[in-house]
Amino acid sequence: MKDSPETTLAALRTALESEDIDRARQLVNDLHPADLAVAIGDLPLQEQTEMLPTLSLDDAADVLEHLDEDEAAEIAAKLPLQMLASVLDEMEPDEAADILLDLDETHAAAALRKMTSSETVHPLLEHADDTAGGRMTTRVPVLRRRMSASQAITYLRSLKPDSEQHYYLYVVDRNRRLIGVVGLRELVTAPPSASIESIMSTEVISASVSADQEECAQLMSRYELMTLPIVGDGNHLAGVITYDDLVEVIEDEATEDIYALASLSADSDLDVFSPVRMMVSRRLPWLYLNLGTAFLAAFVISRFEAIIAKIAVLAIFQSVVAGLGGNAGTQALALMVRGLALGQVEFRHLWKALGRELVVGLLHGLAIGSAVAGVVYLWRGNPLLGLIIGLATFGNLLVAGLMGTLVPLTLKALRLDPALASSVLVTGTTDAVGFALFLGLATLYLPYLT
Amino acid sequence: MKDSPETTLAALRTALESEDIDRARQLVNDLHPADLAVAIGDLPLQEQTEMLPTLSLDDAADVLEHLDEDEAAEIAAKLPLQMLASVLDEMEPDEAADILLDLDETHAAAALRKMTSSETVHPLLEHADDTAGGRMTTRVPVLRRRMSASQAITYLRSLKPDSEQHYYLYVVDRNRRLIGVVGLRELVTAPPSASIESIMSTEVISASVSADQEECAQLMSRYELMTLPIVGDGNHLAGVITYDDLVEVIEDEATEDIYALASLSADSDLDVFSPVRMMVSRRLPWLYLNLGTAFLAAFVISRFEAIIAKIAVLAIFQSVVAGLGGNAGTQALALMVRGLALGQVEFRHLWKALGRELVVGLLHGLAIGSAVAGVVYLWRGNPLLGLIIGLATFGNLLVAGLMGTLVPLTLKALRLDPALASSVLVTGTTDAVGFALFLGLATLYLPYLT
Repeated sequence: MKDSPETTLAALRTALESEDIDRARQLVNDLHPADLAVAIGDLPLQEQTEMLPTLSLDDAADVLEHLDEDEAAEIAAKLPLQMLASVLDEMEPDEAADILLDLDETHAAAALRKMTSSETVHPLLEHADDTAGGRMTTRVPVLRRRMSASQAITYLRSLKPDSEQHYYLYVVDRNRRLIGVVGLRELVTAPPSASIESIMSTEVISASVSADQEECAQLMSRYELMTLPIVGDGNHLAGVITYDDLVEVIEDEATEDIYALASLSADSDLDVFSPVRMMVSRRLPWLYLNLGTAFLAAFVISRFEAIIAKIAVLAIFQSVVAGLGGNAGTQALALMVRGLALGQVEFRHLWKALGRELVVGLLHGLAIGSAVAGVVYLWRGNPLLGLIIGLATFGNLLVAGLMGTLVPLTLKALRLDPALASSVLVTGTTDAVGFALFLGLATLYLPYLT
Repeated sequence: MKDSPETTLAALRTALESEDIDRARQLVNDLHPADLAVAIGDLPLQEQTEMLPTLSLDDAADVLEHLDEDEAAEIAAKLPLQMLASVLDEMEPDEAADILLDLDETHAAAALRKMTSSETVHPLLEHADDTAGGRMTTRVPVLRRRMSASQAITYLRSLKPDSEQHYYLYVVDRNRRLIGVVGLRELVTAPPSASIESIMSTEVISASVSADQEECAQLMSRYELMTLPIVGDGNHLAGVITYDDLVEVIEDEATEDIYALASLSADSDLDVFSPVRMMVSRRLPWLYLNLGTAFLAAFVISRFEAIIAKIAVLAIFQSVVAGLGGNAGTQALALMVRGLALGQVEFRHLWKALGRELVVGLLHGLAIGSAVAGVVYLWRGNPLLGLIIGLATFGNLLVAGLMGTLVPLTLKALRLDPALASSVLVTGTTDAVGFALFLGLATLYLPYLT
C-alpha cells in the first residue's frame, strides 16, 4: 500500500523546510503532479523558482498546468528563457497560451520564438482568455469520412500519446469543415471495415471561437458532453474544449458569482492568498461604492433628525427594519442570480417570478412583521410603536423581495452581469426604503407616540 | 441546417399551449432529451403527467433524467405503476434510485417489485443521496488481468450500448477487488495480444461508498479524472462516479455555498420556481435568526439611548459604521468560504490568512475611515464628530476582516459547514461592534461634541 498523498505531501514539506534536497527529489517522484503543484504552491516564490528547474521537463510542465494561472505566470517569468520555452513546449497548448498571455510582451515573444510548438500555440493567443477560442486546445486528432474503422484505429495508434483525452473524434471534410462525430467507443465496437461515414453522427453540437466560456459550459453541462468542438468562420474546426476545462469554467463562474454577491470584483484569480495589492484593488472600490449608498441612507435618516431628537427610541429600531429588508432582498437575489447562471431562468419568466416573490414577500412580511411588532411592544410597552415598526418591516420585506427579483433580471436583459452591482443596489434600496418607511410612519403618528 | 433548439422549443411551447398534440409530438422527435426536459419542465404538473405517457419509454426515461430531481419525483409519483417501473428500468440506475428515494415508501417498494433491473438499483438505495454510494452507477463493465487487449475489445463489443460512457475500464481480481485501470485509448492503441496486466496502471485513485460527494468531486477535479471508482469494504469495486455526476456535484455545492452566504438554507433543490411552501420553509427560519441578531444590535444601541436623545445626529451615522463593517466582513467571508470549498485553504493556513487580513483591514480602515471622517466633517462641519466616526469605521473594518476569516475556518475545524451561519454570525458581530464603537466613543467625548 502506498502512502496517501497527504502523508507524502507533509514529508515533502518537511524535507523542503530543512532543505534536504535529495529526500525532496525522491518524494517528488512518488507524487501525482496535481499534489506536487499543491506542495510547490505553498512555497515562497523564491523557492518555487529554485525548485522547478530541478524537476524533469515533463514534471515541470505538469506542475505549471496544475498551479493557479497567476502563480504559474509568476514562476514562468523567473525561469531562464530556454528552459521556459522547453517547458511550454511540453504543456497543453491552451495552458501554454494562458501563461504566455500573462507574461510581459517582449518576454512572451522571445519565449515563443524559441518554442518548437509555437505554430500550435500562436492561434490561441488571439482569443481572449474567457472565450471558447481561449479555452480550447488545438491539438486535435481528426478523422475523414471515407476512412474505415480499422484505418481510424491505426491512425490513432500512430499519434503520440497525448495527455488530453479525446474520446470523441471529430470528422472533417477536405476543407477542415466539421461534418460529424464518432465516439471512441463506437469506433472500437464497430465492424473493422465499417466506414466512418456510416457510424458517425452528423448532429454535432459546437460553439464558435468567440463564444463566451460560460455559454460553452452551459452547452456541455446541458447535453452532458465530454468535449465541445469549437469552430471558426465557415464551420472550420478550430479546436476542442475538454471536460477538465468545463470543470474549471464552472468553478470559475461560481467563484465569480459568489464574489459579486459579496461585493467583491468578480475575478476568479482572487483568493485568500492573493497579494495584498491585488486584494485591496479588488475589494476597496466596492467599499467606496458601499460608502456612497451608506451616505444615501444616512441622508434619508437626516431628513428625520428632528423627530429622532424628540423620540430617541426610533434610533434603536431603524436598523432592525433596514437590516431585515436587506437580508430578505439578498435571499431573493441569490436565488435569481443562481437561476440565471444555471440557465434555469430567462427574462420571459419575469412575471411568474415576480408573482411568486410577491406571495412569499407577503407571507414573510406577515410572519416577521408581527414578530417585530410583538417584541417591540413587549420591550418598550408601546403598542403604537410596535404597530409602526411591524408595518414598516412588512413593507420593506415586500419591496426587498421584488427588488431582489427585478434587479438581476433587468441587468441580464440589458446584457450586464446579473450578479454585479445587484447586491449593492438591492441592499442600498432596502436600507433607504426601510429608514424612510419607519421614520415616515413615525412622523405621521407623532402626536400619538409621545 | 436544422432549427436551433430555441426555435424548436418555442414552437413546441406554442403547440402545447394550443393543445396541438400531433404537432407537439412531431417537434418532440426533433429535440435533444435535455431540451425536451426544459420544455416539459416549464409545463404545469398536470400537463407534465399527461405528456409523459405519450413519449416512448426511452424518451420518457431521458426526460426524467434531465429534469430537476424534485420535479422528476413529482411526475413519477403520478404515473401508473407499471409505466413507472418500465421507465425506471430504462433509466441510469443511480438516477432511478434517486427518484425511488424521493417517492413514498410503499409506492417505491411497489415500483421496485415490478422493475426488471431492481437488483442493480437496490444496492444504491442504501446510500444517502449526497454520498459516493448514492451518486455512483453500478452498471460498470470490468476487465480481468489475464485478458488480452483484443479479448477485452471483443468483450466490450458484446455489451449492450450504454449511455453512460466508460472510457476508463477498471480491472478486478476474482473477488471483484479493484486492482488496476486501463484507458479505452490505451486499450485500442495497444498491440492486440498485449495482456491487460501489462497495460493497466495499478495506481488507481478511488473513494469509499460512504465518502461525501464533495470529497469525490475534489478528487476528480484535482486529478482531472473522468470517472472515479467507488469501493466498498475490502476494496471491492461497488460502482463508478462519472464526469456528468461531477459537474452536477460541483454545481450543487456552489449553489449551496451561494445560498448559505445569502442566509438561505443550503438546499440545492431550491430555485426561483420552487413551491411557495418550500420557499418559505427555506428562507423564513433565517429571517427569524436575523431578527435575533438585529435585536441584539438594537439592544446595544438602547444602552446609548440617553446620548442619542442629546445628540440626534449620532442616529444618522451609526448605520454607516455598521454597514461598512458588514460589507468588509462579507468580502473576507466569501474569499474564505470559496477557498475552503475548492480545497485551497486548510486550518494550518490560519495564521497566514489572519496576518494577511490584518494588513488588508488596516489599509481598508485607513482608506475608508478617513473618507468617512472627511464626508462627515464637510457635511456637519464638526471635526470631532468626523474623527470619532472615522475611528469607529477603522476599528470595525479591522474586526470585520478578522471575523470573516476566523469564523469559517473555525466552523470547518469543528467539522461544521463553513458557509452555514457564517454570514449571520459575521454581520451580527460587525453590527454590534460598529454600534458599540461609534456610540461608545461618542459618549467618551460627549463634553466636546455638544
